[in-house]
Amino acid sequence: MQHTLNETPIRIAIVGAAGYTGAELASIAAAHPLVEVVALFASERASNAAVRVMSDIFPRLRGVNDLPIHTATVEAIVACGAKVIFLATPHEASAELAPALLAHGLIVIDLSAAFRLRDAAAYPAHYGFTHPASDLLAQAVYGLPELNRAALADADLIACAGCYPTSVILPLRPLMNAKLLNCSRPVIVDSASGVSGAGRGATTKNLFCEVSFQPYSPLQHRHQPEMRQETQLDILFTPHLLPLDRGIVSTIHVELMPGVSESKVRETLAAHYADEPFIRLLDAGVWSSIAAVERTNYCDISLMVDAAHNHLVIASSIDNLVKGAAGQAMQCMNIRMGCAQTMGLLPAHSVGVAI
Amino acid sequence: MQHTLNETPIRIAIVGAAGYTGAELASIAAAHPLVEVVALFASERASNAAVRVMSDIFPRLRGVNDLPIHTATVEAIVACGAKVIFLATPHEASAELAPALLAHGLIVIDLSAAFRLRDAAAYPAHYGFTHPASDLLAQAVYGLPELNRAALADADLIACAGCYPTSVILPLRPLMNAKLLNCSRPVIVDSASGVSGAGRGATTKNLFCEVSFQPYSPLQHRHQPEMRQETQLDILFTPHLLPLDRGIVSTIHVELMPGVSESKVRETLAAHYADEPFIRLLDAGVWSSIAAVERTNYCDISLMVDAAHNHLVIASSIDNLVKGAAGQAMQCMNIRMGCAQTMGLLPAHSVGVAI
Amino acid sequence: MQHTLNETPIRIAIVGAAGYTGAELASIAAAHPLVEVVALFASERASNAAVRVMSDIFPRLRGVNDLPIHTATVEAIVACGAKVIFLATPHEASAELAPALLAHGLIVIDLSAAFRLRDAAAYPAHYGFTHPASDLLAQAVYGLPELNRAALADADLIACAGCYPTSVILPLRPLMNAKLLNCSRPVIVDSASGVSGAGRGATTKNLFCEVSFQPYSPLQHRHQPEMRQETQLDILFTPHLLPLDRGIVSTIHVELMPGVSESKVRETLAAHYADEPFIRLLDAGVWSSIAAVERTNYCDISLMVDAAHNHLVIASSIDNLVKGAAGQAMQCMNIRMGCAQTMGLLPAHSVGVAI
Amino acid sequence: MQHTLNETPIRIAIVGAAGYTGAELASIAAAHPLVEVVALFASERASNAAVRVMSDIFPRLRGVNDLPIHTATVEAIVACGAKVIFLATPHEASAELAPALLAHGLIVIDLSAAFRLRDAAAYPAHYGFTHPASDLLAQAVYGLPELNRAALADADLIACAGCYPTSVILPLRPLMNAKLLNCSRPVIVDSASGVSGAGRGATTKNLFCEVSFQPYSPLQHRHQPEMRQETQLDILFTPHLLPLDRGIVSTIHVELMPGVSESKVRETLAAHYADEPFIRLLDAGVWSSIAAVERTNYCDISLMVDAAHNHLVIASSIDNLVKGAAGQAMQCMNIRMGCAQTMGLLPAHSVGVAI
Repeated sequence: MQHTLNETPIRIAIVGAAGYTGAELASIAAAHPLVEVVALFASERASNAAVRVMSDIFPRLRGVNDLPIHTATVEAIVACGAKVIFLATPHEASAELAPALLAHGLIVIDLSAAFRLRDAAAYPAHYGFTHPASDLLAQAVYGLPELNRAALADADLIACAGCYPTSVILPLRPLMNAKLLNCSRPVIVDSASGVSGAGRGATTKNLFCEVSFQPYSPLQHRHQPEMRQETQLDILFTPHLLPLDRGIVSTIHVELMPGVSESKVRETLAAHYADEPFIRLLDAGVWSSIAAVERTNYCDISLMVDAAHNHLVIASSIDNLVKGAAGQAMQCMNIRMGCAQTMGLLPAHSVGVAI
Repeated sequence: MQHTLNETPIRIAIVGAAGYTGAELASIAAAHPLVEVVALFASERASNAAVRVMSDIFPRLRGVNDLPIHTATVEAIVACGAKVIFLATPHEASAELAPALLAHGLIVIDLSAAFRLRDAAAYPAHYGFTHPASDLLAQAVYGLPELNRAALADADLIACAGCYPTSVILPLRPLMNAKLLNCSRPVIVDSASGVSGAGRGATTKNLFCEVSFQPYSPLQHRHQPEMRQETQLDILFTPHLLPLDRGIVSTIHVELMPGVSESKVRETLAAHYADEPFIRLLDAGVWSSIAAVERTNYCDISLMVDAAHNHLVIASSIDNLVKGAAGQAMQCMNIRMGCAQTMGLLPAHSVGVAI
Repeated sequence: MQHTLNETPIRIAIVGAAGYTGAELASIAAAHPLVEVVALFASERASNAAVRVMSDIFPRLRGVNDLPIHTATVEAIVACGAKVIFLATPHEASAELAPALLAHGLIVIDLSAAFRLRDAAAYPAHYGFTHPASDLLAQAVYGLPELNRAALADADLIACAGCYPTSVILPLRPLMNAKLLNCSRPVIVDSASGVSGAGRGATTKNLFCEVSFQPYSPLQHRHQPEMRQETQLDILFTPHLLPLDRGIVSTIHVELMPGVSESKVRETLAAHYADEPFIRLLDAGVWSSIAAVERTNYCDISLMVDAAHNHLVIASSIDNLVKGAAGQAMQCMNIRMGCAQTMGLLPAHSVGVAI
Repeated sequence: MQHTLNETPIRIAIVGAAGYTGAELASIAAAHPLVEVVALFASERASNAAVRVMSDIFPRLRGVNDLPIHTATVEAIVACGAKVIFLATPHEASAELAPALLAHGLIVIDLSAAFRLRDAAAYPAHYGFTHPASDLLAQAVYGLPELNRAALADADLIACAGCYPTSVILPLRPLMNAKLLNCSRPVIVDSASGVSGAGRGATTKNLFCEVSFQPYSPLQHRHQPEMRQETQLDILFTPHLLPLDRGIVSTIHVELMPGVSESKVRETLAAHYADEPFIRLLDAGVWSSIAAVERTNYCDISLMVDAAHNHLVIASSIDNLVKGAAGQAMQCMNIRMGCAQTMGLLPAHSVGVAI
């Protein structure tokens, strides 16, 4: 134990600990000098295997997190003593749990989509359930720190941005705000994601021998309305499954307003994100890859303009489990709890950056 | 040896045998009941390792093709006794070899891009060399059998279609011809290819530990002008590297003319390709994948229309080494030599198709 | 359809068509010029999805095998008109089905372990069930053609060799028979297999994100008694899971009798397998790999002797779904039905082998 | 920059920064609260690309380590101001550099094999060069902290253990010391390693499309004499290439002395490693995997005894780039410099371990 909790620790609980996002939260929490994980919870089915502990499910966590996993009930969560509750649960479970936890004065950081969309009607349409707590949709703060930092600082219900949306909104919103984009044209987004994005459920399509590269749910994926809400652009979104554990690259095609140059685009993003430690704007000719962001909280943005077509192509990459889920949730918590936002998410110190 | 060559065999030679496309040609030729591989050739560097035979380089071919690999010179190729010469060689090598081989009355099936583009000026612009035989560009027949069968039947110089272009032209051209597409809008093509598309050269970027998912050469890839030439559409093409050995999926976004429905698109393709054994038009809701076409000569086409946007998304998949290279070349040869076009490329017989 | 069934076709049925081995049988059957697949069967659960056809489950088979999948009952199988029944079913299902099918005069080729072991007591011990037809164990012929060809020629119940055992028995038995091995010492076998060996069941451990490299069931795997039975050696077997779709490499360590040289070992195997088209004995210094045998019916054998230790190390590789299952089953059928044994399993013709 | 260097930093330099081990050192150093990387060096070829910085070669290090890479000369290394020099260089380069650096009073931590073997004659035999500084072989301390901690505390030349040897020596040496093993019998070790173990050189065999699973250099690998030296056992070692980026599993077969039980083996290891934070002895029935140790400094040890054969099988896993190279080197440095040995190598704090 190389660092001691030399300030009052932030006591957290992870609900949905038996999934990939829950495990990633446990890893990140272990690296955070001020966080103490006080309890883990999962659904009855996932937690009921008697005395099961976290590292039985995820052997790499042995020695890092060997806590038992309890069945997730409001009573148990409230009783565990945590101040911040991370919900890495299915959408409906989050929608049920959050109001009760908030009522007990807890801070809820939800990694599902349950509180991301402002329009309650979107839930039956896109998620197949009527929202049981639609009054909270207006109160929830969208958890994308680079674009929403101020609101996060005192939010009690944080709806962390989705994985694909994070990779798409981060490059587009500053350009949209700067009025560089021709909003009358649809924006084409082709993304590819590693298999962990599909969760840890035992389904045939996610078996090792079944995974291939292919599109799925073109123009109908649940993240399309989320992207549209947060960019105010008419996005046409096609996700693809990728034979990798983790990582997303989004390739984005958008028409620029007449006369907008590549330099202008580049400068706009550079200026907007100048002080953001997790946004890396890549040099011309260098393209975002999954390898460069895997197991980090970075979002890498690369781009090029075809001036003859006023066409901007952006490739943006993140790790879906980190910046697309658990890392972003921890970044939100850091902001909410007054920690440095990089705590637990960046190596101790970096060198040569200023050279 | 289960089939005998019970008709006069077609004597072929493979030039560029030490590359992935050359090896795929050798595999396919072994499965072709009427083809006899009489000689293999490679560059001096690849062939000069003394008594090297094909299966020393590609151990899976042991017992299938154990021929020695000779240095590729016009004299040696002409002397080997083959009637049909497959050039799986670099663009410039093909451009140099083809005229001399044609002058000796041989049939040349070129898998490089040396004779694909009709405009000689495109070669210095996109391929970095001045074409040494530009007079042949008008004579060469573009090797995409489904769209060019008649011309292939008596072509002596066949310029096989490129891998990415095959996956893009096959779905688009019938729709273009039927005037269903809004040609005033650019067509967005995001493709992903397995690593074999980059060849067998020992470069750092193709090392096992370096390959990731990422775009490369957006809007500037050499296949973009080829796609534009063959579709007459204003294509904006972004290829991506994929951590798989082989396979391509092209995701194509195009605006339809007003009022064109998904059924109309589907019927147009179905009618156009009704008799084509290698084109599989997938049912609505089923999407092309690399797994389904890997190691086959099929092109799978899947699609969907967002009527509100007049937007058509197509996902088209092939194996870059088969339908995108060696299989297509053999299909062209079958047509040129009067064989059934599926010979060597489909299993002996299929069942249930008519049920 | 390039070959016609110019002799009376062999009518076969595949039971267990919804699994990986069943699909591989369907692929191989399509390439076999004399085989006609007349019906497909699966368990009620796998077949009951209404009008499901084979290519809905395995999209790569579209156009190759689009037959419907029926529920496997003895009545339906008998009524389908097939003469040869391939059972790609769980052990217990095979043990139940085989006697009834044999009673109807059908030829049964079983790919499970139900009839591999001669000792009925081994079934409760290693497979967890009491054998319902133990009288057939003496009658069943072990399906490893290279070592059992004569008996297969008129067998009505063929118990195809297991995947791991195939890779281990083929190199060891000729050496054992020639008395080159020190039988008083245990033989150490460390094997690694691709994930398809675990079947197509939707279990968490076979998910894309869960598969890693690791041993499982050391010294306790069900194939250990099968290897011991067929080699009469005291084998200690440790299998490993490998992050690949298919393929097995078995690394075998055995003590030689004093004075036995590497040449002697090599000559013994070369002589024994001189006429076997599917055994490739590799040159000294070349080692078996999965890449070289993937999607083939070959078994590659490589070896080396450390004379100071009288120690022989053998690496033997196969494709678990082909030579380890469906290919071997078809090879057995070829022998039983009087076809050339390579039919459907080797390309039409090979070149250069005699050079 | 979340932690400040609140004590005098340890100034280090990395020589061989352009390789995979060098990059891993840079990553680990960034996570170490007391380390400051003052300079990076590489061979003239790797460093001479003008103003190249570390993150141009390894894009994931952008923002983490953007230092320039200088040509490695003794003068430049001495002048850079570092106190501890990590040599992630080829064996011969290390053998040349180390004496000169030691002569300048620097601490040298060598990750090559240049100073691992005590017998100078082993270098021409196994590494192909005559050792230029054989007098240092007796002075070098073998860098395997769990078995050599005391000697490391004041070593100026540390020869970090090899990757495969680390995975083999850690489980065997305590058993050997406790006299549980039958030393008259050879120990069989079959290991498998991810491709990064072969380095970052651009060779055909390490291309993405060429890597498969297969053994290489059985009984002749350079790590065999190192394992023998450090265990005093007659090890017969066969490494295998594995289609993964990183990770090693060693499966070890050894005969126990009569009557030694599995409990005895397990207790011996548990007792020996009770206070070792990086050794995880797995419960019976749980087996080491690469997934569980990837990107960590752990060595996971699992085992089972077949009492009837007095046979012990051990599976031991590490990450070849961390516990097998850079992590182990940093652990050695921590011991040498008086830091907590887990610094930079374990997350900030763990939970539940004592529960």
